[in-house]
Amino acid sequence: MTREVAIEQPILDLNDRLAADNRALLDKHKIYMLDVLASPGAGKTSLILATIAALRDRWRIAVIEGDIASDVDSQRIKEQGIPAVQINTGGACHLESAMIKRALDILNLNELDIIIVENVGNLVCPTDFYLGEDAKVMILSVPEGHDKPLKYPGVFQVAKAVLLNKIDTLNVFNFDERQFKEDVGRLNPQATIFPVVAAGEQGGKGITAWSQWLCAQIEQKSSGGGCSVRQ
Amino acid sequence: MTREVAIEQPILDLNDRLAADNRALLDKHKIYMLDVLASPGAGKTSLILATIAALRDRWRIAVIEGDIASDVDSQRIKEQGIPAVQINTGGACHLESAMIKRALDILNLNELDIIIVENVGNLVCPTDFYLGEDAKVMILSVPEGHDKPLKYPGVFQVAKAVLLNKIDTLNVFNFDERQFKEDVGRLNPQATIFPVVAAGEQGGKGITAWSQWLCAQIEQKSSGGGCSVRQ
Repeated sequence: MTREVAIEQPILDLNDRLAADNRALLDKHKIYMLDVLASPGAGKTSLILATIAALRDRWRIAVIEGDIASDVDSQRIKEQGIPAVQINTGGACHLESAMIKRALDILNLNELDIIIVENVGNLVCPTDFYLGEDAKVMILSVPEGHDKPLKYPGVFQVAKAVLLNKIDTLNVFNFDERQFKEDVGRLNPQATIFPVVAAGEQGGKGITAWSQWLCAQIEQKSSGGGCSVRQ
Repeated sequence: MTREVAIEQPILDLNDRLAADNRALLDKHKIYMLDVLASPGAGKTSLILATIAALRDRWRIAVIEGDIASDVDSQRIKEQGIPAVQINTGGACHLESAMIKRALDILNLNELDIIIVENVGNLVCPTDFYLGEDAKVMILSVPEGHDKPLKYPGVFQVAKAVLLNKIDTLNVFNFDERQFKEDVGRLNPQATIFPVVAAGEQGGKGITAWSQWLCAQIEQKSSGGGCSVRQ
């Protein structure tokens, strides 16, 4: 596949340069940016909504929503009174730094502590694209199966934290949590794994532990003042 | 995004030329090729295994497995005594015609009626790549949510049939089947929708209707002889 590499490299180089610009801008404003990766339907928007509920008393939050088409996700965020910018990639399976730059131009950076980026639903393409974020995290949902670290190793390797969502359905799908943790641990020993339920009847399960982890990350970048999470 | 289009176009042109070669080779051998698209964990391999069980008495089947990494899927197919070729894309989020060509070189085309291609788990990238197949079909699984046609319209538009898998979990995930069918119908009025359960306790549900549809498609290309499906 040398043909592909030769073509992709210039795109990635340009992307990285713009990502560095994004990062410098965010650093200047002491804003922490989180890039959330997952398959379609893994629960990205629900997880972001649960995270907003846990952190909004302490931090000023905005969301950048990446989708092939539609603005249903950014509408859900805006309904919570949180600024949200929708990016429609029109076919591209990942966000790029240039798109993030345009979104940052729209947001009021003087009034934010954290920006959560919901990337396009995809376990493959977004992995290679640095956007200027402080961390990438990923969500795997239980119905997708415990064998996914073996099949999509790249995304598990770039994630600073792995959220295992929909753990209320572990039995329905015969999901082997022990095997999953072992395989993730082998690919990425530094990644913290958070079992959660983002939505539904048991919605909120595990969200406190995850939010405390994220809060501590933001705290390191912000002007301090301690971490508190609404439970 | 003119930059992207300019770079992608030559790849797609080359891909289409090689796809036409694949198709001519398949036509010569009266082999029907099916390209199966879905997200990671939607149940592609399980659906293919259920389809093999339904059709193997009538047709000679082979499978081409596309994965970023690992050969667990092709191992599952081979355990059933079915020829399977594993393609590891090493990062690429879709199969291309050149990869299929290499797989066709390995298979014994004189002894086959249908080749099922399991594309890389992804609702976006494989959509644009014609491989020489007779039809693309897609699987959406209930846990992914009924809003996916709005967010990933492209894949629903190219699919000749849409399999809705894991319908034994409709209630667990508040999946609105009526809304889903309405949205798919708007994007692609020609697509047939098959509600199925590919694996688990209720595994096999809906597989007969789907297999009969597929059998009729193969029949049109083969030397005839009627369709029968093991129930």
